Amino acid sequence: MQWVKVLGGLVGASALLGLGIILGHFAIPKGAEAPAPSVSVSQDLDLEILETVMKQLDASKIRENLRELSREPHLASSPRDEALAQLLLQRWRDPESGLDAAEAPTYEVLLSFPSREQPNRVAVVGPTGTILFSCRQSEQNLTGEQGGPDVVPPYAAYAPPGTPQGLLVYANRGTEEDFMELQTQGIRLEGTIALTRYGGTGRGAKAVNAAKHGVAGVLVYTDPADINDGHSSASQTFPNSWRLPPSGVERGSYYEYFGDPLTPYLPANPSSFRLNPDTVSGFPPIPTQPIGFEDAKILLCNLQGTSAPAAWQGALGCDYKLGPGFRPDGDFPADSQVNVSVHNRLELRNSSNVLGIIRGAVEPDRYVLYGNHRDSWVHGAVDPSSGTAVLLELSRVLGTLLKKGTWRPRRSIVFASWGAEEFGLIGSTEFTEEFFSKLRERTVAYINVDISVFANATLRAQGTPPVQSVIFSAAKQIPAPGLDGLSIYDNWIRYFNRSSTEYGLVPSLGSLGAGSDYAPFIHFLGISSMDIAYTYDRSKTSARIYPTYHTAFDTFGYVDKFVDPGFSSHQAVARTAGSVLLRLSDSLFLPLNVSDYGETLRNFLQAAQRDLGVLLEQHSISLGPLVTAVEKFEGAAAALGQHVSALQKDTPDPLQVRMLNDQLMLLERTFLNPRAFPEERYYSHVLWAPRTGSVATFPGLANACSRAMNTSLGSAAWAEVQRQLSILVVALEGAAATLRPVADL
Amino acid sequence: MQWVKVLGGLVGASALLGLGIILGHFAIPKGAEAPAPSVSVSQDLDLEILETVMKQLDASKIRENLRELSREPHLASSPRDEALAQLLLQRWRDPESGLDAAEAPTYEVLLSFPSREQPNRVAVVGPTGTILFSCRQSEQNLTGEQGGPDVVPPYAAYAPPGTPQGLLVYANRGTEEDFMELQTQGIRLEGTIALTRYGGTGRGAKAVNAAKHGVAGVLVYTDPADINDGHSSASQTFPNSWRLPPSGVERGSYYEYFGDPLTPYLPANPSSFRLNPDTVSGFPPIPTQPIGFEDAKILLCNLQGTSAPAAWQGALGCDYKLGPGFRPDGDFPADSQVNVSVHNRLELRNSSNVLGIIRGAVEPDRYVLYGNHRDSWVHGAVDPSSGTAVLLELSRVLGTLLKKGTWRPRRSIVFASWGAEEFGLIGSTEFTEEFFSKLRERTVAYINVDISVFANATLRAQGTPPVQSVIFSAAKQIPAPGLDGLSIYDNWIRYFNRSSTEYGLVPSLGSLGAGSDYAPFIHFLGISSMDIAYTYDRSKTSARIYPTYHTAFDTFGYVDKFVDPGFSSHQAVARTAGSVLLRLSDSLFLPLNVSDYGETLRNFLQAAQRDLGVLLEQHSISLGPLVTAVEKFEGAAAALGQHVSALQKDTPDPLQVRMLNDQLMLLERTFLNPRAFPEERYYSHVLWAPRTGSVATFPGLANACSRAMNTSLGSAAWAEVQRQLSILVVALEGAAATLRPVADL
Repeated sequence: MQWVKVLGGLVGASALLGLGIILGHFAIPKGAEAPAPSVSVSQDLDLEILETVMKQLDASKIRENLRELSREPHLASSPRDEALAQLLLQRWRDPESGLDAAEAPTYEVLLSFPSREQPNRVAVVGPTGTILFSCRQSEQNLTGEQGGPDVVPPYAAYAPPGTPQGLLVYANRGTEEDFMELQTQGIRLEGTIALTRYGGTGRGAKAVNAAKHGVAGVLVYTDPADINDGHSSASQTFPNSWRLPPSGVERGSYYEYFGDPLTPYLPANPSSFRLNPDTVSGFPPIPTQPIGFEDAKILLCNLQGTSAPAAWQGALGCDYKLGPGFRPDGDFPADSQVNVSVHNRLELRNSSNVLGIIRGAVEPDRYVLYGNHRDSWVHGAVDPSSGTAVLLELSRVLGTLLKKGTWRPRRSIVFASWGAEEFGLIGSTEFTEEFFSKLRERTVAYINVDISVFANATLRAQGTPPVQSVIFSAAKQIPAPGLDGLSIYDNWIRYFNRSSTEYGLVPSLGSLGAGSDYAPFIHFLGISSMDIAYTYDRSKTSARIYPTYHTAFDTFGYVDKFVDPGFSSHQAVARTAGSVLLRLSDSLFLPLNVSDYGETLRNFLQAAQRDLGVLLEQHSISLGPLVTAVEKFEGAAAALGQHVSALQKDTPDPLQVRMLNDQLMLLERTFLNPRAFPEERYYSHVLWAPRTGSVATFPGLANACSRAMNTSLGSAAWAEVQRQLSILVVALEGAAATLRPVADL
Repeated sequence: MQWVKVLGGLVGASALLGLGIILGHFAIPKGAEAPAPSVSVSQDLDLEILETVMKQLDASKIRENLRELSREPHLASSPRDEALAQLLLQRWRDPESGLDAAEAPTYEVLLSFPSREQPNRVAVVGPTGTILFSCRQSEQNLTGEQGGPDVVPPYAAYAPPGTPQGLLVYANRGTEEDFMELQTQGIRLEGTIALTRYGGTGRGAKAVNAAKHGVAGVLVYTDPADINDGHSSASQTFPNSWRLPPSGVERGSYYEYFGDPLTPYLPANPSSFRLNPDTVSGFPPIPTQPIGFEDAKILLCNLQGTSAPAAWQGALGCDYKLGPGFRPDGDFPADSQVNVSVHNRLELRNSSNVLGIIRGAVEPDRYVLYGNHRDSWVHGAVDPSSGTAVLLELSRVLGTLLKKGTWRPRRSIVFASWGAEEFGLIGSTEFTEEFFSKLRERTVAYINVDISVFANATLRAQGTPPVQSVIFSAAKQIPAPGLDGLSIYDNWIRYFNRSSTEYGLVPSLGSLGAGSDYAPFIHFLGISSMDIAYTYDRSKTSARIYPTYHTAFDTFGYVDKFVDPGFSSHQAVARTAGSVLLRLSDSLFLPLNVSDYGETLRNFLQAAQRDLGVLLEQHSISLGPLVTAVEKFEGAAAALGQHVSALQKDTPDPLQVRMLNDQLMLLERTFLNPRAFPEERYYSHVLWAPRTGSVATFPGLANACSRAMNTSLGSAAWAEVQRQLSILVVALEGAAATLRPVADL
C-alpha cells in the first residue's frame, strides 16, 4: 500500500489553472525531481513523415522480400516456417531498421498432415479389384519447384483417414441443395464417392453435406470454368500464363471453425486444457481428398447417368453426367468404383507468432495492430508472402525512421506475423484468446494484409464502417500504379462502388467474413478491422481467386512474371496500408468515423422491413423498437460529429481528446454480445456474425427468422426471433449510449 | 465525414514540445478561436473539501430522511415506492442542493404478490377435515403500524400457488443434508409438509431441496435461537426490545437467481423479449409460506416421532421432534395434517430506478457509482431506508457544494436508487443489462450502502481487494461514534481482523456474494465493488441478522429507539462511504490498490494446494501453471506499484495518469469470463463466482473438483476440472498482462 501513502503527500499540492494558449500546467509535488523531458500530448499526424514513408516504400525491396520469403515451402510449423519466424525477428530487432522490441511466442496446436509413408491416393478400381487408374499424388514439376520433400502433397487438412470405395457421383459444388438435387433425380447416394468442385460453399461443408446423404468419400477439384476462364491445356496455363496447370490442386483446411481445434476459447499453451481429438466437432466426417482437373476430367468425363443440370456443367470438355458409376463405353468397366485412400494424421505442433512493437510516444496503451500470417501451403508467394513482403517493407521504413530518432508514433504499433493461419487462423486466434482483456481494452484497430496482390487492377478493401473513412483518406492521396494522375481512390471507385445516402458514389467496402486473421479480432473481440489488397479487373477474368491459389505453382516467378511485374501493386498496397496505419497511430483525433455505422444500420433495417416485415407482422413481432434504436444511434452519432468539429476548432485538452477517442475506439465493442449466438464459436458481433439466407440484414434476426419460418406460432424458434430482436435493440441502444455525451444519464 | 476533412486542416499545425515545468502546450489549429477556460487536468482530491463534507454530514438530517422514507410501507412498485422515487428525483433536482441531472427510468418486471382476495393460509386440519388451528395471516399490530392495507401479509415471493396438505415433518434448515438425515432416520417425506427454519441455505433452496424428496409444501419460520438469542416472550421482544416479536415473519424472495425473471441478460423494457412465466426456472417448485415463531411453536411442539438431532433444536421451549405428524397426546388428533394454501400471483409491474449524476470536471467519462435500493417489504426503516437516508444526506451535502460552485469532482458521480431489489436485485440488474458496454468501459467502482446500520458496534465492509485500501484510508480519518479518539479503523480492527502477509493485522474485508445490488456490478460486469455498513458486536448477539428484518416491525421507531439512537452510526457510515466516494471520484491517481489482489490469489492458491493438491495429483493435474500465473501477477503488481510511486514523485502528464488509472480500473474486468460458468446466470468473475464446498479457493476449480471427486479417471467431470484450471490461468495471466508496462509484448 506504499502508493496510497505517497498519495497523501500529493493531495495538498495546489493545482494551477492554465488559461490562454497554455493548458495543463502541473503542480509539482513536494520532493519531486525536475520533470523528465516529455513529448507533446498534442502530437498529431505529421504529413511530412507520412509523405516520407510513402516515398520510401520501395517496390524493389518488396520484391526482394518476396523472393526470400517464398524461396522454400514454409508450411505451418515446418523448419522453414520457423526459420522465417527467425528472419522476421531478426529484421524487427535490427539496430538500424528494427522496432522497439520483438518476440516469437509459440503455441502448441493441432495440425493435420498427410502421411509420408502412406501417401493419400485416389484410384479407379475395376470389378475384380485391379487398380485401373490412379490420380497424381503430387503436382507436375513444371518449374523445378514442385518437387522435393518440402512440397506437401495435395490433401484436405483435418479430413479423417479412411479408405472408402464406391460408385462415383458428380455433386457439383457439394452444397446441401446439390445433394438434394441428386436425390430428386433418384440417385442413390449411400456408399458413393462424390466428386465435387471448389466454390459455392466452404471446403469442409462439402463433406458435411455429403455425409448427411450417406456418401462415403468426397473428392474436390477446381474446374477450369471456375479458375481459368475455361482454359485448361498445358500451353494455356502456367508457366505459360498465370492460369492453373492441369495438375494443380488447391490444398486447404477442411475444419469448420477457426482457432486451434483442441483449445476453443483458451490459448494453446502447453499446459492448457485440451479436448480429446476424437470428440472434436468441426472436422469433416468422411475421408476427403482434392485432385487436379486433369484427373477430375478422367473421372468426370467417364461418368454415366443423366446429364447434370446446365449450371453444373464446367469446362472439362465433356458433358458432365451425374453417375452413379462409369459409363460402359468409357475408359473403365461399368462396375468400376473409385477408392479414396486418406491417411492424414493429426499432430500437435509448435507454431510461432512473431510480434514486434513500436512504443507509442504519447499513448503507448493504445494499439494499432497490423498483421498477416506467415505460413503457406507450399511456397506461398502470393498467399501469404505478398502480404509479408509488404509488412517487412513497411516495418523497415518505419523502423528506420524510429531508429534515426525522426519519428515515434503517438500510439503503439504492433506488427504481427501469425502462424498456422492456413489451418484455421490459428496463431491469431490463440493470440486473441491469450490477451483478450488487454486487446479488448486497448486496441484501436486491426489492419490485415494477407494476400496483398491478387491482381493489379484496383484496390479492394473489406472492413467495418468506422474504417471506411481512413481508407478513403489514404487512397485519395496515393497515385494508382500505371494510371498517370489517377489516385488509388479514383481508380478503386471505377471497379467497386455503391451509392451512399451520405456521400453519393463511393468505393464499396466489403464486409469481413472469416477468410483471414481479422476474424478473431472483429468477431471475438469486437475490434474495428480491415483487410486490404490489390485485386482483379473482373471484366477480364471470372476466376474464383488467383489460379495457383494453394498450389505448388504459387511461386516467386509466378508473381514476378504474371501477378505484379515491377511490384507496383505491392507498393500501392504498402502505401495504402501504411498510410492507414500511420493515420490510426498518429492522428490526435482517431480517424474512425463511427457515424458511418449509421448507414449500415439503416440499410440492414430497411432490408429487414422490406424482406422480413410481413412475416414478422404475421407473428405479431414489431420492428418498431429496432427503428427507434437505429434512430437513436443516428442521432447520437450526428451529435458526436458536431462535438468533434467543435473540439477540433477549439484547443482541446488532452483528456478531452482521449475521452472522445475512447468513444470512437470502443463503439465497435458495443456490438459484441458473447451470449447472442452461443452455438457460433467466437462469433459475438451482432452485426457481422455469419448470416444464412440472402437478405442483407442483421444476422441474428435473419437466421432466427429463417429457422422459425416453417414453425408454428408460439414455437421456441419464434421466441428466438424475439430474443434476437431484443439483443439487437439493446446493442444498438448501448452503442448510442456510448456515443452520447459521457455524462448523460 | 465532415470531421475527417477538418482533420486535414489540423494536421499541418506543428506541435510544440513542452519541457521543464510546463507540459502540454497545444498547437492552435488555424481558424481556431481563443480557447475556453479549462479546468486543471491535474485536479486532485482536496482535503479541505473532504473535511467539509465530513463535517456537514448531519446525523439529525439522516434521521429526518429516515422518518420520511419509512413513514409508509413502500413495497416495490407500490404507489408509495413510486412516490419515494419522486421524492428522490425532487431532492436531486433541487436548485440549492441537487445534482446536475436526475431521471427515473422504469422497467416492466415480473413481481410476485399474495392475493388480497384469497389470503395465504396455514392450518392444521383434523382427520375429519375440520380446521383445528390457523396460523396468523398478518403480524400483530403492536405499534399501530402493522395494520392497514399497505402492509403486505407475510409470504414467500415467487412461491407457486397451491394447497398441499400432509403430515408435518421438521426439516431443520431445509438443506440437502437435512433432508438426507430425515431419510436416514427412515422418515417418509413423500406428500409431507416440511417445517423449516431460516438460515443455513437460501430461501428458495429449502423448497428446491424439499421437492426433490417428494415434500408437498414448505413452511419457514425464524427460530428465537437464531434471531433473539433465545428470547421469545412478548415482554422480551419488540416494542420492549429490539428483538423479534412472536408474530414477526421474515418475508423474502424465494427466486433462485437475480434480475427480472422474464428477461435474463436483457433489460426489462416494455418491448423486450420475455420468457413464458410457466417455463421460468428458479422459482420454488412447491408452495411455500413463512410463519412466525409463535405459530411455529404450536406446530413444532406438537410433533411426534424421534427427537431431532441436538443441532436441530431451537429455543421454542420444547424438544423438537421430527414427525411425521402430531403426537397423540398433544393439541391435535394424531392424524391431523397441515394444509398450506398459497395464492401468490405473478404480476408484470413498473418499477423505477432513480439516477442522479454529478458531472466530472476533468474525466466525466469515468463513473463512480453509489447506490442502494429503495423498495422495502414493509416500512423498511433499516432495510433499505437506513441506506437511502445516508444516500440522501450525502447527495445533499455534495449537491450543495456543487450548486454553490465550491466543488465539482474530477470524475462523474452517479447516485442510484434501485427498484425491486427485494424481489431479486431487479432494478440494478436491469440497469447493468441495459448499459453494460458503457458501464463496463467507464465505471471506476460501485459503492453499495444498503442497510447502513445493522447495529452500532463497528464498521463492516465487503468488497474486492482493490477497494480495501481506500476503505482503510477513509476509516482511519473518521472518529468512531461514541469512542473518544478511536478512529473507525481502530474500532473496526477490534471486531473483524485478519493477519495479512503484507500489512500485518488489518481489518478483514468480507467477500461479495449476491446479497444486495452490488451483485450484477461485480459478477456480471467485473466492476470493483463494495458494501459498507455498521454492524453488531458479535459478543453481544448471535442473531442471524437484526431481528425485525423483513417484518412489519422494521420501523422508524425501531431504529430510533433500538438500532441507532442519535444516528451516530448512520453518520459514521455516511462519512466512511462519503470519504470513499470522494477519494474515488477526486483523486488524481485512482485509489484502487490492485496489488492487494495478490494476497487473495496467494491465499486461494495455498488453499488449493493444501486441500485439492493431492486429489489433483492423483489425476495428473498440475497446479504448476497456476503457481506461475500467481507469481506473474505478483511480479506485475509490484512493478506497477513502483511505477506509480515514480509517477507520483515526478510530474506526470495527464495522459500518463489516465493510462495508469485505466490499468487500475480495468484490472477487475480481466477476471471476467462470460464463458467460464455457462450454467451460473450472470456469474462471470472467475474469483468470486459462487463456491460450493468449504475450501476457500478459486470457485471454478473448487466446484469442478467437488463434482469430479467421485467420477472415474478420464471422466467429463475431470476434463472440466482441467478446463477450469486453464480458464483461471488465462485470467490471471491476462490480469498480469494488464498490469505490466502497456507497451510490453
